[in-house]
Amino acid sequence: MEKVNKVVLSQVITPRDPQSYKGNYGKILIIAGSTHFGGAAILCSSAAVHSGAGLVTVATTPEKFTAINVKIPEAMTIDYHSKKDLQLAIQNSNVIAIGPGLGTSSVAKGLVKAVLTNTNAEQTIILDASALTIIAETDLLLQSEANLVLTPHQGEWQRLSQLPIAQQTPENSQAKLRELNPKAILILKKHLSEIYYQDKILQIQAGNPGMATGGMGDTLTGILAGFIGQFGFSIKTISSALLIHSLIADDLNEKNYVVLPSKIIEKLPKYMAKFSQK
Amino acid sequence: MEKVNKVVLSQVITPRDPQSYKGNYGKILIIAGSTHFGGAAILCSSAAVHSGAGLVTVATTPEKFTAINVKIPEAMTIDYHSKKDLQLAIQNSNVIAIGPGLGTSSVAKGLVKAVLTNTNAEQTIILDASALTIIAETDLLLQSEANLVLTPHQGEWQRLSQLPIAQQTPENSQAKLRELNPKAILILKKHLSEIYYQDKILQIQAGNPGMATGGMGDTLTGILAGFIGQFGFSIKTISSALLIHSLIADDLNEKNYVVLPSKIIEKLPKYMAKFSQK
Amino acid sequence: MEKVNKVVLSQVITPRDPQSYKGNYGKILIIAGSTHFGGAAILCSSAAVHSGAGLVTVATTPEKFTAINVKIPEAMTIDYHSKKDLQLAIQNSNVIAIGPGLGTSSVAKGLVKAVLTNTNAEQTIILDASALTIIAETDLLLQSEANLVLTPHQGEWQRLSQLPIAQQTPENSQAKLRELNPKAILILKKHLSEIYYQDKILQIQAGNPGMATGGMGDTLTGILAGFIGQFGFSIKTISSALLIHSLIADDLNEKNYVVLPSKIIEKLPKYMAKFSQK
Amino acid sequence: MEKVNKVVLSQVITPRDPQSYKGNYGKILIIAGSTHFGGAAILCSSAAVHSGAGLVTVATTPEKFTAINVKIPEAMTIDYHSKKDLQLAIQNSNVIAIGPGLGTSSVAKGLVKAVLTNTNAEQTIILDASALTIIAETDLLLQSEANLVLTPHQGEWQRLSQLPIAQQTPENSQAKLRELNPKAILILKKHLSEIYYQDKILQIQAGNPGMATGGMGDTLTGILAGFIGQFGFSIKTISSALLIHSLIADDLNEKNYVVLPSKIIEKLPKYMAKFSQK
Repeated sequence: MEKVNKVVLSQVITPRDPQSYKGNYGKILIIAGSTHFGGAAILCSSAAVHSGAGLVTVATTPEKFTAINVKIPEAMTIDYHSKKDLQLAIQNSNVIAIGPGLGTSSVAKGLVKAVLTNTNAEQTIILDASALTIIAETDLLLQSEANLVLTPHQGEWQRLSQLPIAQQTPENSQAKLRELNPKAILILKKHLSEIYYQDKILQIQAGNPGMATGGMGDTLTGILAGFIGQFGFSIKTISSALLIHSLIADDLNEKNYVVLPSKIIEKLPKYMAKFSQK
Repeated sequence: MEKVNKVVLSQVITPRDPQSYKGNYGKILIIAGSTHFGGAAILCSSAAVHSGAGLVTVATTPEKFTAINVKIPEAMTIDYHSKKDLQLAIQNSNVIAIGPGLGTSSVAKGLVKAVLTNTNAEQTIILDASALTIIAETDLLLQSEANLVLTPHQGEWQRLSQLPIAQQTPENSQAKLRELNPKAILILKKHLSEIYYQDKILQIQAGNPGMATGGMGDTLTGILAGFIGQFGFSIKTISSALLIHSLIADDLNEKNYVVLPSKIIEKLPKYMAKFSQK
Repeated sequence: MEKVNKVVLSQVITPRDPQSYKGNYGKILIIAGSTHFGGAAILCSSAAVHSGAGLVTVATTPEKFTAINVKIPEAMTIDYHSKKDLQLAIQNSNVIAIGPGLGTSSVAKGLVKAVLTNTNAEQTIILDASALTIIAETDLLLQSEANLVLTPHQGEWQRLSQLPIAQQTPENSQAKLRELNPKAILILKKHLSEIYYQDKILQIQAGNPGMATGGMGDTLTGILAGFIGQFGFSIKTISSALLIHSLIADDLNEKNYVVLPSKIIEKLPKYMAKFSQK
Repeated sequence: MEKVNKVVLSQVITPRDPQSYKGNYGKILIIAGSTHFGGAAILCSSAAVHSGAGLVTVATTPEKFTAINVKIPEAMTIDYHSKKDLQLAIQNSNVIAIGPGLGTSSVAKGLVKAVLTNTNAEQTIILDASALTIIAETDLLLQSEANLVLTPHQGEWQRLSQLPIAQQTPENSQAKLRELNPKAILILKKHLSEIYYQDKILQIQAGNPGMATGGMGDTLTGILAGFIGQFGFSIKTISSALLIHSLIADDLNEKNYVVLPSKIIEKLPKYMAKFSQK
């Protein structure tokens, strides 16, 4: 198991080309939120914007548009009940993150299916939270032409892999991932989170129990989307996203008993500058 | 009357286990808010989140979902008009705080009754504000299998106990609490607030008149919920919650004529770190 | 013309009694806002809360409840279309501020009339903005059993007094105020604002052109309401409210080309502490 | 090509007359936002307020009123579907900015047409974003009695001028602007943005790729509106607005990998004070 440390950050977070424009930094679609879980869509899309994503669109239920406008005026919105708008947004995006606060309704299932089946090899899908539950509990297969990133915590990985937490050894998890989809990247969120990709297993050398609070996973998903949108789909990009999330949290935890997701989000631009190549 | 001082804080606010996850830090249900009193639900749930609660769900009227999403994206919401959703949320929670901004409508009365009768000895109910008025003014009895915490100010305690403020001596209040419910904890909010539990009477050695402003009690209730969710139901936990609330307010009051609840809330993570065992 | 300087602040902003509670610091009713002028209600009530008002209720159109909950969770709301709720709120308040963003609809006129006619000598009414226009343009008389405070800028004073701005000399303004209502206090907002009360004319020795921006008057009205609620209706209270508003603005203006009302509001608790008697 | 540097800022951002009032600093109408693009209206109007505009009215869809009230309580709102309200607002404004987040619906087209045809030589129109697309793609002519400012990025300029990006040389752009409207000012947004006006071509000596993020153009449009409202329509005013936008961004970029529009906006009052004549 390879350990991920800060070196990867300066390899990934490269200086921007002066001639570039926002289209160069990813077109991100975040499919998230539902009547009772509005905050997840906010945290996820806010994290994407603060991590430098060029263009962020949030597909959600229209009841949440006002809260999103207030909290992330930089983001655009669409109504995920509109098949036409959703289809167009999927086509126009490089990275699609689906799941935070989505719930497991039939609408949500339809959204997961639409994303898996309407994407191509140039695109990346991040499956998180409710999206993973839907795949675990329905007949939807974990198959897509797009690059796949799965972000379960241990309980979600149990539901998806059928591996009880006690049996989630690196070997077992690796084997199960191969069965489910040998091309996917698995991020197993836990104390010292692990990343599985083909033959590789990486471990994040950061994180703390002050992060054990609602919305922390939604925030990570947003950072992942922002990083993949800017720096491309790769194990290094994904390692960097996880590491910076935990490093910021560790610094905050020195002076804060609990680390609130919103506090991590607002520090992203500074930490990215700090670790960027000069 | 025993005096509560800072020693209790480091006994209660213990370091977190690195292997822990958010489910270890309390599943809090806050039943609060109504059309004309939306802010109370916000302050109470925001205080719970900032005091480190693992998972916070706000049961309120749907008109308030947007404001809650904006101010506390870390929290989930349910519609308290849905009996099914409410019943499920009560079952899934360790701590239920009811009352801030709830009003005294028949819906509110039904909610108080549902909470008192659908909980068990593993759970704690915090009865605040409107919930106390409802119990004082209707035929609802102060009885539940759950642990009970009452948080009246002097006027509310008068309505509940029939003791005029001038007669609210420690002895009288203790006797009345025994009549009402001998297992409950009473927090009597006043200049130097008092805590009553069985044979014990404790007094908080902090607090200032800059706290005499709307929303201060809603905030305390949120901190109580967060602390009980993390540290368990005990007289020490409750003392700590009250003390930290007033200590932060005292520090703020040195440079602020009035102490706004939102300012106390945002300082919670730092003060908890400061007083936590190292 | 007497000059108002900082001495008055320490006379008015006295230390709070440790035994006091929020009911001691004013029950403020702010009747403000309409579909197109929602921000005025927010700035006015936020200023009242930050200046230390004990309890603040905003009577407005329900469309604005969400924005008020987000920005001032410490405040309560009522729907000013409900005659019953409004009547009760007027009775229960010490200070009623009416006008910011209210517009001049027939509903607004009805509100001004209700306030003027349903108040008594123990109460204070602050008439601002639209409320002044309504009185200038309709047959409503500037009469009430309550204490009256008028807060026109020069254009509004012209409409109310029929005095063209060039003729608004101290003598003329004083004479016109006697005609309109000899017991009212007039605050004439301009460069070095003036206060007229019976034989007295006072001038505020602070203020700057960076304050020439939308919402500045709504903010002053909120501070006036908060101060009168806490410190009582008097020429000194009113002078203090005006002076602190301009002093904060002057400090901000040293480093800010334009002084935004929200910035003044957030500094109120600190400046009040600074000028309070120790 | 003349280079724009900081000297122009102190020529334009002159000290305010102590006797002035908010009506002296521009009556700005911002026509922006639609169901899916609410944030653009917020950023644009917030930038106008923070840059010192005296009075800012946002014409948008009423669904966005709550978000605007929360984020910019200093601004007023109107419903752009009401022809009467819109007409009145156009008449009462010195500067009208149209386009951010407006979309290209028939309603939006009607708004652009109304603005172009109902304004006079005393007024300035800033055409941005969707407004430029509408003119490029419909039979609407770029003609008005008002002063015109166009703010396309290179892709929008291509649509408007038919010049492919590779052929957007200063000579070609200048020639095309003459064809389209010889009296208009063109701001071509790119790495080192250019300003075209009659015989002049200016280049902004500031800006960085951290600005390549959603909402950056909406923010510039708001600053332009605020500056023209206060300092008048001139090439110097426009140069100053562009330069200060980029200078703030450059300072932020030193410590932030991505420069969020909201961060630029909040620094406007300080930077304007810093560069103002003393």
